[in-house]
Amino acid sequence: MNGERLRKQIDFIVEIDKLKHILRRTYIMDNSRHENDVEHSWHLAIMTLLLSEYAEQEKIDILHVVKMVLIHDIVEIDAGDTFCYDEQGQKERVKRERKAAERLFSILPEDQTQGFRALWEEFEERKTPEARFAASLDRLQPLLHNYYTKGFAWRENSVTSDMVFDRNKHIEKGSPSLWKFAKDLIEESIKKGYLPK
Amino acid sequence: MNGERLRKQIDFIVEIDKLKHILRRTYIMDNSRHENDVEHSWHLAIMTLLLSEYAEQEKIDILHVVKMVLIHDIVEIDAGDTFCYDEQGQKERVKRERKAAERLFSILPEDQTQGFRALWEEFEERKTPEARFAASLDRLQPLLHNYYTKGFAWRENSVTSDMVFDRNKHIEKGSPSLWKFAKDLIEESIKKGYLPK
Repeated sequence: MNGERLRKQIDFIVEIDKLKHILRRTYIMDNSRHENDVEHSWHLAIMTLLLSEYAEQEKIDILHVVKMVLIHDIVEIDAGDTFCYDEQGQKERVKRERKAAERLFSILPEDQTQGFRALWEEFEERKTPEARFAASLDRLQPLLHNYYTKGFAWRENSVTSDMVFDRNKHIEKGSPSLWKFAKDLIEESIKKGYLPK
Repeated sequence: MNGERLRKQIDFIVEIDKLKHILRRTYIMDNSRHENDVEHSWHLAIMTLLLSEYAEQEKIDILHVVKMVLIHDIVEIDAGDTFCYDEQGQKERVKRERKAAERLFSILPEDQTQGFRALWEEFEERKTPEARFAASLDRLQPLLHNYYTKGFAWRENSVTSDMVFDRNKHIEKGSPSLWKFAKDLIEESIKKGYLPK
């Protein structure tokens, strides 16, 4: 065993413990507190295992999607969570996250730095079937949380149904079926008064 | 799309949100609060991606290990976390967790009920190379958390070095290299006074 290699891997494993502190705007489903990035990522990974059959358009590599969703938010240790409806924040997000990826992934041995960096970039670019499916789940999951907390985070942040439709429509690119389900959920949320029209 | 099938999958995805409430004895690495089961499972999944090269004895299927570590604690939604050094609790654990697996996994469509149930049982039995490696990580991760919190949870629960050696020695069955690393960490913890001899 190369001791230095394992040391770097362990250092990264220790560093990413900080992701347990990065809170999202979304609440966990009993509405008791904000969800953190790690909880969100785990939920996406399980959703990948269960819902991959709905990536109907192209055959996807499940392990590849799981890897992407597990690591996609690690950059937020340095860059923080950017609220998805904050337009100004979204503009600056790319620069902040790129710098974060540089620092964080380079804690790893060189080959794993490259591997994790490539996975993160693939997720961000949404050009492969795997990245499009991962992006669909990344939108569907908070939609579920919003629905089951009766739109708590939506109301708290003055989010309207137009914004939600616009933000979530790319679910269709990863999965038409899941987009159909998501649309019904949004319509239902409007009907129930969870989301202002 | 079969609407009933997706409904069951979503119901399960909603149900397992409760795992975010199940606290472990372990603290997150800055010692600010207990770690929950979801955070622990996510950490193990990333460790699987990074450390699979140390499953030296047998070739392992990485996706299979990732699946096991992602779902291995879901039964604790009903059964609760059983402290690993609580002998009485450990005896009753099997029965409680079996009942929990029955209820929870059967929320899913039949094929996925079987699939998740089989993964959970495989993890528990530790008979396959994948399950042995998953079990090694399941022990190494809290060891790291204990080391980096200067033995906080060990001291809080009157855990001694004999108990830690005994509890963790099966790391060797999944990875001799990681056991060597873990042993050094335990020795170091004794030396630094994090763990009573």
